[in-house]
Amino acid sequence: MILIKVGGSKNINWEGIISDIKDLDEEVIIVHGASKIRDELAKKLNFPTKTITSPSGIESVYTDKKAMDVFLMSYAGLVNKRIVERFQGADLDVVGLTGADAKIWVGKRKKKILSKEKDKVKVIGDSFTGRVEEINSDFLVELIEEGIIPIISPPAISYEGDLINVDNDLAIATMAKEMNIEKIIVLFGAGGLRKNPDDPDSLVNRIKREEIDDYLGYAKGTMQKKVIGAKKALKGGVKEIYWGGVDGERPVKEALEGKGTVIKN
Amino acid sequence: MILIKVGGSKNINWEGIISDIKDLDEEVIIVHGASKIRDELAKKLNFPTKTITSPSGIESVYTDKKAMDVFLMSYAGLVNKRIVERFQGADLDVVGLTGADAKIWVGKRKKKILSKEKDKVKVIGDSFTGRVEEINSDFLVELIEEGIIPIISPPAISYEGDLINVDNDLAIATMAKEMNIEKIIVLFGAGGLRKNPDDPDSLVNRIKREEIDDYLGYAKGTMQKKVIGAKKALKGGVKEIYWGGVDGERPVKEALEGKGTVIKN
Repeated sequence: MILIKVGGSKNINWEGIISDIKDLDEEVIIVHGASKIRDELAKKLNFPTKTITSPSGIESVYTDKKAMDVFLMSYAGLVNKRIVERFQGADLDVVGLTGADAKIWVGKRKKKILSKEKDKVKVIGDSFTGRVEEINSDFLVELIEEGIIPIISPPAISYEGDLINVDNDLAIATMAKEMNIEKIIVLFGAGGLRKNPDDPDSLVNRIKREEIDDYLGYAKGTMQKKVIGAKKALKGGVKEIYWGGVDGERPVKEALEGKGTVIKN
Repeated sequence: MILIKVGGSKNINWEGIISDIKDLDEEVIIVHGASKIRDELAKKLNFPTKTITSPSGIESVYTDKKAMDVFLMSYAGLVNKRIVERFQGADLDVVGLTGADAKIWVGKRKKKILSKEKDKVKVIGDSFTGRVEEINSDFLVELIEEGIIPIISPPAISYEGDLINVDNDLAIATMAKEMNIEKIIVLFGAGGLRKNPDDPDSLVNRIKREEIDDYLGYAKGTMQKKVIGAKKALKGGVKEIYWGGVDGERPVKEALEGKGTVIKN
């Protein structure tokens, strides 16, 4: 089984991805983002996406109740269902789900989070964010055994029953561990890890498992989360991780062929 | 098994509905609308909902690609997932789905529809609307057998793989027929059929199956569709239909007790 994560870019070649999935002779689970479309929608609704920075320097999206509404509209509504439509139109049967449905992704809500603004640290109490800790593997396996591809987007659900925004890179690491998945493909705008984010030629083609820590320093912003997620996935038992682009002719195939960054031994 | 349809009002007492479902000793499927929230969102996005009237006088929402985007945001995104959250928070396991997921609702897209404006009839070609004809009963039954309540919203998916806006009242009639469901509860703002839409005291408490045609004349707008849907449901084998309100203390219980309009022999 392969876990394919597709980022929240706007120029995703879904047609290519779908062709690749048809060619793969393996079962897949898809996890997707929608950050760009969420940000556009948030802006249109005069409620622009806010980010906060933790004292340790990790950026994340501030998700209060209203931001969660916009999140649901874009991730669970517009983007997830347009992906479902594409797959169904290509004769691949799919179910679009959030982590909250059938408690696929359950986690702890961080009721208080710290945000560093300039030199001050603020406590934020109305945040609906957390981290996925439990996976409803049985439900996903049943779908897959019926020939249905699960297409999953955040949010997850907390133990208390609140929708929570979670990091997809960490969520897929937890999924891979719980479901014994050994191969992960992560497709996103930059198409791999770049030593210099602005220079496509600085792409790192190959990272050995034991070297992953060395790359934490190169990674900024969302890339930092991908490296942390990859580290967690490797620790959980994943053998191969393929980072690749979203807009190539055959995004999944190209990632597997090593056009992006391959992490394995 | 009981099919519960909840309308697109804003003042829905979900807590009461959830308590009722816990008390019912029966399996349920829930179908919901989101028209009010859709209309609000459409307005905020400067793309207000447009309705068209067929030459025979039936009103419906004009759903082109952009309107479908707003539809997905509100129905499949915001409303469906907030309902999922409420149920999960009350320890009822649920899966939020559209008719497109796992092809639960498949139908024919009406590529050309007629719209009467004043005295002219216009042909509209960019409409994504249709009617549910096929139900993936197996998928729904499997969910229910696992103790998971399906919470379904439109759109459906066409045979060609396009998302299509469909009428919920007709969709539940088709579902009831295909799944041999004999009891339907329909909750909505007016809480039943009124002989005079503006007068709550004109509520009709009881309609016999064979009398349903007599009430087509009293029904305007969305109520008209409910009567047509009820007629279709009865024809398909449904034995009892309960129309009730959404904002009572115990909406499902009150509907079953006959506080709204009961259609049966």
